[in-house]
Amino acid sequence: MNKPASQPDPYLRVVKRFSLAAKLEAAGDMLNWDANVNMPKGGAWARGEQMAAITEVSVDMIGSRAAADELGEAEIMAGALEPGEQADLREMRRKWAHASAAPAELQTEKARMAQTLQSLWVQARADNDFKSFAAPFTDMLGLIREIAAAKADALHTTPYGALIDEFDPGVGEAMIDPIFDDLAKFLPPTIAEVAERQARWPAIVDPGPVSEDRQAILSKRLTQAVGIDFNHVRIDQAPHPFSVPHSPGDVRFTTRYDIDNVRFGIMATLHEAGHSMYEYNLPRDWAFRSAGVARGASAHESQSLSLEMMAGRSREFLGFLAPLMAETLGVAPAATTYDNVLNIWRRLDNDYIRVEADELSYPLHVILRYRLEQALMKGDLQVNDIPGAWNELFQKLLGRTPPTMGQGCLQDIHWSAGLFGYFPNYAMGSMLAAQLFERATADDPTILPSLGRGDFTPYFNWVKPRVHARASLVDFATLVSEATGRPLGTEAYKRHIQKRYLDEAGL
Amino acid sequence: MNKPASQPDPYLRVVKRFSLAAKLEAAGDMLNWDANVNMPKGGAWARGEQMAAITEVSVDMIGSRAAADELGEAEIMAGALEPGEQADLREMRRKWAHASAAPAELQTEKARMAQTLQSLWVQARADNDFKSFAAPFTDMLGLIREIAAAKADALHTTPYGALIDEFDPGVGEAMIDPIFDDLAKFLPPTIAEVAERQARWPAIVDPGPVSEDRQAILSKRLTQAVGIDFNHVRIDQAPHPFSVPHSPGDVRFTTRYDIDNVRFGIMATLHEAGHSMYEYNLPRDWAFRSAGVARGASAHESQSLSLEMMAGRSREFLGFLAPLMAETLGVAPAATTYDNVLNIWRRLDNDYIRVEADELSYPLHVILRYRLEQALMKGDLQVNDIPGAWNELFQKLLGRTPPTMGQGCLQDIHWSAGLFGYFPNYAMGSMLAAQLFERATADDPTILPSLGRGDFTPYFNWVKPRVHARASLVDFATLVSEATGRPLGTEAYKRHIQKRYLDEAGL
Repeated sequence: MNKPASQPDPYLRVVKRFSLAAKLEAAGDMLNWDANVNMPKGGAWARGEQMAAITEVSVDMIGSRAAADELGEAEIMAGALEPGEQADLREMRRKWAHASAAPAELQTEKARMAQTLQSLWVQARADNDFKSFAAPFTDMLGLIREIAAAKADALHTTPYGALIDEFDPGVGEAMIDPIFDDLAKFLPPTIAEVAERQARWPAIVDPGPVSEDRQAILSKRLTQAVGIDFNHVRIDQAPHPFSVPHSPGDVRFTTRYDIDNVRFGIMATLHEAGHSMYEYNLPRDWAFRSAGVARGASAHESQSLSLEMMAGRSREFLGFLAPLMAETLGVAPAATTYDNVLNIWRRLDNDYIRVEADELSYPLHVILRYRLEQALMKGDLQVNDIPGAWNELFQKLLGRTPPTMGQGCLQDIHWSAGLFGYFPNYAMGSMLAAQLFERATADDPTILPSLGRGDFTPYFNWVKPRVHARASLVDFATLVSEATGRPLGTEAYKRHIQKRYLDEAGL
Repeated sequence: MNKPASQPDPYLRVVKRFSLAAKLEAAGDMLNWDANVNMPKGGAWARGEQMAAITEVSVDMIGSRAAADELGEAEIMAGALEPGEQADLREMRRKWAHASAAPAELQTEKARMAQTLQSLWVQARADNDFKSFAAPFTDMLGLIREIAAAKADALHTTPYGALIDEFDPGVGEAMIDPIFDDLAKFLPPTIAEVAERQARWPAIVDPGPVSEDRQAILSKRLTQAVGIDFNHVRIDQAPHPFSVPHSPGDVRFTTRYDIDNVRFGIMATLHEAGHSMYEYNLPRDWAFRSAGVARGASAHESQSLSLEMMAGRSREFLGFLAPLMAETLGVAPAATTYDNVLNIWRRLDNDYIRVEADELSYPLHVILRYRLEQALMKGDLQVNDIPGAWNELFQKLLGRTPPTMGQGCLQDIHWSAGLFGYFPNYAMGSMLAAQLFERATADDPTILPSLGRGDFTPYFNWVKPRVHARASLVDFATLVSEATGRPLGTEAYKRHIQKRYLDEAGL
């Protein structure tokens, strides 16, 4: 225990139980990284068994009657605890509710099924073949709905809200719906206006193909600029860029180098480095404690998007990036002029892939998934109808239709991994990133000029105490309002878009 | 469950418990691989916590009162079980005895300490600095002795015997001592006689430096020749070559490429590929079951040494290896003539490192460690006196004295990993490899000629049903006598040495 002074025993006892489970889950997170980065194909079955065992044991450990009894005893004595410990106890109670609401077999079965379904998804995406994915995904969805229904009862929310709560406590449909409705109105006409202006921009000089090795060197340089010590990080390649959580001091993320599109690897690296800095800066004293983890998926995404979108597409940072690209990538000089790099990074995309989308289209990609998930959960949409519904909504929100399933409803790993209710944070994170970054740059005018030198120190000096170091010691709403002075909304994001893409839109 | 027909419930219940623990342990084995292959330095603390959690939970799961009760109930009904299931039950009872004998905190603490001590060992070995290693190792040894004493009571054996039993059930001091005494008498004069003959051999043409990339290509080719499907294997580099057990279908081993000594990487690859084939061929129906694992450390080592020593240094295999080296390594042609390769592989070494030792010196390296471990366990040797005792015994057995600690008592990872009682299997494995290979080549005269074409199929056709597929479904003594027609002894090994190094010793 980290703060043994004056803690009553019941609290310590329940901390021990939940920490043990947290360490097992962290082992599972690392094995999931391994499955995506290292594992030979033939290992899928055994890995599924291992992951299911970890889930079974940890769910039993924190969702058991014994856990409830220990929590109850600790809660009676909660008045004697420090505020951080009280928050810790609340988080443990919340985890108990999630673990105990649905039968353990369902959650174990879901973990096992996810292992198989991810392999099927990789193949289905490559083949643009939704049909082979639909039947096993229907089984997965059935399991998810059953789990969600049980949790909705326990957590007094909607089934879909219960799923969101697992990833993003404090961010429910009541907070999301008005924000997404506002964005769905604001963005399409704004995108049209920006597109009209950009039609007058010069053509982009394509940097052309760049080897993975050269791109990896640039990724390392960027990660160092962001500030991660190489004794504590590794960068690998995987089909879907992601960061490993819950592993203090061992920060890993994956990226993907598209030989024909250097922008993708650069964006993915900045994005994942943002996630990794959050994990890296979490308070070590609270490691493996329930209040010691990041505040939730939206807060996490705000940190990746602050680097990828807010800092990463600022004029200042692009002024640092352009010569770094020239130095490391070995492409035609005309491709790495400041104007051309600005043109590449600010240009609206006309594509179909969420993770490659521009700053304005990105929330629309997310709103699409959110609405499909709501419909799937309510039973208003059937699995076989996903491709049609996807394309219809894509057309409505973004004005075009994906030509293939791989560019449409099969593009994301999430559903195959059983991640449902996870997507909304990607756009909620955009809102929070804009709101935090607006406040940070107002509080400290050196942040932006420093980015021009590739120096992220002032930015992290601002955000670390206000977000990273607070872990889950306060709730989401408190975190947001104490850091930015107001509740989460769309205003800062809209001001940011107006300023970057309309007021200062010249090349 | 794999064979549900007619199984009584109490057996199934205890199988479920032990399988769950086995899957957690398998997750731990994979994380240990990761710690050696991938983990950034800064991850050591968190990994220690994760490994300790896995140990704590699995030891509690299989060493608890509840496990004992379930075992007892299953044992009452054991008469109704099939022989394999009865063996499974006996193995579970043995695992229970190990897990329950010593307090769980001691075993958890040992796992945690091992994580730190391994990092210290890497540094100490690099610095030839035993002193910085001695104090933390003394703590580790104290823990090990405490655990061993508790287990000795529970298993009715010596403390050191109890440690051996954990890795190598059925191979105790009573079996080891006469074999090692015989070898300690036989080998030194035999080595002297062989050395005298080899003094007349031409000088070796050193292949010289070879890049890691070229060596890795050769390693892959050798692994394919041995017969491992690349959908099921990965080969990486780590300071100490090892194989990951308990991961059906996901076979991983590490090797090490010494740029100035290609022999080392080739030997390590064959050695670990031998271990991996054992794991690869274990019966999938019995995966994660207590009787489904390899029979023990000596049986495992017999499989690695069968490839590295018996097959790998045969005239036939070297006739395949020499042109493969010529094709892949890009060295001077004179270095890869058959005679020169035979000269390299058969030549007695005059060095200090166990894992690089020749076939005759190797058991003496092991006997040294075995006797030091016996003395450390009995309290006849203190940690600070290890370097002196090591060098004295090395001089006595091998006629020379290691010039540095890194080439002496700091060369092995085992003690830092808390592996005590593990070494003897390396030499017991030599005895079994010789005994199995003598019988295999007598039963099937095509085995050796096939090796000349790089074809291991006839060899594995012989050994798979007799060793691999039997897993732990029979005990060690039964496995050995049913496969070879007699109990384990030194005779086959001595005949092999006599034949290869004296009767047919010409170049």
